Amino acid sequence: MSDHELRVSKIRDGTVLDHLPGGSALNVLAMLDIDGSEGTGVSVAMNVPSERLGTKDVVKVEERELSQAEVDVLSLIAPRATVNIVREYAVREKKQAERPESVRGVLACPNSSCITNAEEPVQTRFDVLEDGVRCGYCEEIIREGIADHLDVA
Amino acid sequence: MSDHELRVSKIRDGTVLDHLPGGSALNVLAMLDIDGSEGTGVSVAMNVPSERLGTKDVVKVEERELSQAEVDVLSLIAPRATVNIVREYAVREKKQAERPESVRGVLACPNSSCITNAEEPVQTRFDVLEDGVRCGYCEEIIREGIADHLDVA
Repeated sequence: MSDHELRVSKIRDGTVLDHLPGGSALNVLAMLDIDGSEGTGVSVAMNVPSERLGTKDVVKVEERELSQAEVDVLSLIAPRATVNIVREYAVREKKQAERPESVRGVLACPNSSCITNAEEPVQTRFDVLEDGVRCGYCEEIIREGIADHLDVA
Repeated sequence: MSDHELRVSKIRDGTVLDHLPGGSALNVLAMLDIDGSEGTGVSVAMNVPSERLGTKDVVKVEERELSQAEVDVLSLIAPRATVNIVREYAVREKKQAERPESVRGVLACPNSSCITNAEEPVQTRFDVLEDGVRCGYCEEIIREGIADHLDVA
């Protein structure tokens, strides 16, 4: 039995996100726009001992299969995330989060004079660099603490 | 085996919050100032089928025993919350969230001209009424959607 099975049990249908950095689960939920108000089952285990990562988080989302695009956004804060799509209690598909070329509507630009921070209906867009992300409007670069800039309003 | 044991397993030492309204777990964590950065185990099961509540959330916080005062704050959003203090895998203490007389630093006042929203170092204080809460400064009353006013900055 693996570590996370000790903390949260199997789901029947849905998506299992594993190997998330310890303590990142709430940011992962925010990026996926999941807060429990959907009414479907969500289980989270934070800071589970992991051989590979020291500690890790696991998130299980029932009755929802995440797309590759949804998963790829997670690579910004969880580069080693693994994703299993589960149907009838069995893993039917395995995905890996891959760095997307850009992300839209996920991050808020830290530059207060950026147009995305004005009262304009402009969706944020960041180009993903090797070592950070760059605002597609004002070119401000975020290198560290990307999770602190999640646009979860 | 009860519902929540199907979703998240037993903890060795810590606090189990049960009978939280379905979908409220993330607000409960915010009220307790828990976001996973503590490094200790936290597990959450949202929207678990419950006979008593329809659906419920369960939160297990490892290596931390919540005090009565911490628990009482939760009564604002989870009036039927039950709290078990667990030591060495056994429930050693049972508490019930009770409505406190007032809460400090938990809610943000929705009145933008309230002094607690000025750039002053004033901690919010709300008096708890039968059917809501009242700002201790400007007397603004929040009756519904208290969770929307959590001060989680």
